[in-house]
Amino acid sequence: MTSRIPEPAIQDTPSDTHPAGLASTAPTPGAAGLTSAAAVRDAAAALDAADALAACRDLFAPADAPGAGVPVTAYLDGNSLGRPLRATEARLHDLVRGAWGTGLIRSWDEQWMALPYRLGDRLGAVCLGAAAGQTVVGDSTTVMLYKLLHAALVHQRAASDGRRTELVLDSENFPTDRYVAATLADALDVELVWIEPDPAAGVTVEQVRDAVGERTAVVLLSHVAYKSAWLADLPAITAAVHDAGALVLWDLCHSAGVVEEGLDEHDVDLAVGCSYKFLNGGPGAPAFGYVAARLQADLASPITGWMGHAEPFTMGPDYAAGNGMRRFVSGTPAVLGMVGIEDTVDLIDEVGLTAVRDKAVDLGAFVIAVVDGLLSRHGVRVVSPRDPAQRGAHVTIAHPRCRELYRQLWGEGIVPDFREPDGIRLGLAPLSTSFAEVAAALLRIDELLG
Amino acid sequence: MTSRIPEPAIQDTPSDTHPAGLASTAPTPGAAGLTSAAAVRDAAAALDAADALAACRDLFAPADAPGAGVPVTAYLDGNSLGRPLRATEARLHDLVRGAWGTGLIRSWDEQWMALPYRLGDRLGAVCLGAAAGQTVVGDSTTVMLYKLLHAALVHQRAASDGRRTELVLDSENFPTDRYVAATLADALDVELVWIEPDPAAGVTVEQVRDAVGERTAVVLLSHVAYKSAWLADLPAITAAVHDAGALVLWDLCHSAGVVEEGLDEHDVDLAVGCSYKFLNGGPGAPAFGYVAARLQADLASPITGWMGHAEPFTMGPDYAAGNGMRRFVSGTPAVLGMVGIEDTVDLIDEVGLTAVRDKAVDLGAFVIAVVDGLLSRHGVRVVSPRDPAQRGAHVTIAHPRCRELYRQLWGEGIVPDFREPDGIRLGLAPLSTSFAEVAAALLRIDELLG
Repeated sequence: MTSRIPEPAIQDTPSDTHPAGLASTAPTPGAAGLTSAAAVRDAAAALDAADALAACRDLFAPADAPGAGVPVTAYLDGNSLGRPLRATEARLHDLVRGAWGTGLIRSWDEQWMALPYRLGDRLGAVCLGAAAGQTVVGDSTTVMLYKLLHAALVHQRAASDGRRTELVLDSENFPTDRYVAATLADALDVELVWIEPDPAAGVTVEQVRDAVGERTAVVLLSHVAYKSAWLADLPAITAAVHDAGALVLWDLCHSAGVVEEGLDEHDVDLAVGCSYKFLNGGPGAPAFGYVAARLQADLASPITGWMGHAEPFTMGPDYAAGNGMRRFVSGTPAVLGMVGIEDTVDLIDEVGLTAVRDKAVDLGAFVIAVVDGLLSRHGVRVVSPRDPAQRGAHVTIAHPRCRELYRQLWGEGIVPDFREPDGIRLGLAPLSTSFAEVAAALLRIDELLG
Repeated sequence: MTSRIPEPAIQDTPSDTHPAGLASTAPTPGAAGLTSAAAVRDAAAALDAADALAACRDLFAPADAPGAGVPVTAYLDGNSLGRPLRATEARLHDLVRGAWGTGLIRSWDEQWMALPYRLGDRLGAVCLGAAAGQTVVGDSTTVMLYKLLHAALVHQRAASDGRRTELVLDSENFPTDRYVAATLADALDVELVWIEPDPAAGVTVEQVRDAVGERTAVVLLSHVAYKSAWLADLPAITAAVHDAGALVLWDLCHSAGVVEEGLDEHDVDLAVGCSYKFLNGGPGAPAFGYVAARLQADLASPITGWMGHAEPFTMGPDYAAGNGMRRFVSGTPAVLGMVGIEDTVDLIDEVGLTAVRDKAVDLGAFVIAVVDGLLSRHGVRVVSPRDPAQRGAHVTIAHPRCRELYRQLWGEGIVPDFREPDGIRLGLAPLSTSFAEVAAALLRIDELLG
């Protein structure tokens, strides 16, 4: 995957890695040209005109419609809460009136009992590179992570005669991952081994190789780092973990739906992720979990609810873990939160994940080009990777005044995210974000710093 | 609380325990009179005409509208999945279009971060008898139960120098409760002490007194038994548990919203419950958890996600449990699933929980009167308590042909629940269930057995 923005030699030629008709093919000015507001606006207009996914934007409910607060004219936080598709709005309404309101309890038998698995399989096929029977939707990311990590740690200890008692993780992982890991380590008498990510490279394969060994049980990492956007080398790190006889659990929260995961291809063991970011499931929509088929029978969920039972409606005296992913389900599936996920997965399936990833790369390159061309004179710097092969679908920029800038922008309906201590995180959701939105946010930052 | 159906002496006089204008005051035929279909229909019509909550039925989306499958003309499974209020239908639509679609990430700051606590407090005040700051909405019941039970078991062991290592529970509790308890017992080296409920009395205070002692850590029971509908003597059992120095965790899944709980008044320690039954939260809507204020600081959730942190957005290196109920929250709250709960709590607040409970009692008494008068000749028997003071808001009837009957009824749009081995469970949701619906179901059973 290459960006076509900072490298003019590539920009004038449509990339042959793009399926016909899907990727933007317009010439893009390099950073050298983006030194004025007009140039930035023109470049954004050209990129939007050539955007193969431009039509997708109209599929979303309008962010600037009259509603809650100042109308949002530039939304750059789809990596925190994705926007609702119009289809989701309609389907939720139909669900309340139909499957819930008239189907009533019958809808469990007819569709909802199978939904966590059916949607998991769809998500797996379209976004995760996972064959059927390995992905399930449910719980919050925190709870799903707890269940899979607990299961993996207990299994690894038992399978190694008590030798594998270390959990390797990195200090820049999302708080939930660190907190869940620390509490589980206390409860299970597991030792935490911390990797400090290289500011210039994220978590590297070499760091992982140095950290793992014959005492390693599990390695827990994020595919895309939530603050910096570093995209980890999932294939090489997974292989390094396996070389040490350990299991890897990838957190896909910031990559699912925008980065090709290839979980099966790269022999990943376990993964969790969230659905309310790039998958547009809505506020608090359920998480997903992936367990490689080869491992499922060996792992046991610590939270053994009736929905994970082999035969939930027998309601017998003893728990018997269901086969496959069923054993990782605990309580009753959160049906309302699954509608948006399914609609987004359908849309990604239609346009192709490659096109989504390509536009994410282009959006990120555009941010970097504008910062270099226009904002660097104010001292704004890019703290995310410049190499698109090492970057997820957000770009964090830093400046001492970012906290103040972000408050001002929010008040004006320009909505990026703030990250301590001095970062503005620009989420780039390829299905819904226009280059014009990115330009509007960055030009306004230029004015405010000017 | 007394029923006004099997006791004619009381029936002709409005009960003075009913707030004026809220309770049905019509004379009701006793079982002796309900020996014909015509008598049953007449009685149902009279009861519906006098039903103080009759107007509530029109607040629900119509179950028999064109939609999924055969139109439902009698819905008697609101104790498995409550029907959607029309208000919920509208508010969900507004939420997608407004707070989600236009408020976007800002809605977290402005309303959703506080929602689990705000809605928990409302639910606590209206339905649970719980002062603010002790109830939170989130997770599935299974996960919430796991967290609170884990916290209580660990605390009790530590507070007793390792002496309190027993968990008392009953063999007729809902499967999730038994399965979660058994797995936690294995993980935490806790011993399970089983109570076998008395078929003629449910779980009695005497049984609890016999089961608890100085080794008891926690007693886990359901307020209303999911199959039989036995309503446990929560005040006396809670006191008995406390006499032994143990903690009690009440499962309120089948009582919340239809039975006065009085959690604070009766000094309950912990409780969990579900919201998609009588609280109409919708399929898979989140659970709730209650922890008495006096205990909160001593208990630690095993699942330490970022949302339970004292300052979630600091995202610092170490977990610091939030104060109050915050520490029992794990991941991002499931917002879509909370709309229906709030609407139902608002409605219960408006009509009064006492009126809801009174109608539940009347509906149950009507079922029993019809079984006694008409169905007993086929061998149908009531397996739920006859004393309304000992009965929740469902009545289970038994007959060897119940499985076949239930399938037939579903095909005709009459929807009760089936429970192994030979029970039909009639859920009586006072806000949405009419006496005519009950009559229709029972008369059809009479025809099918006739």
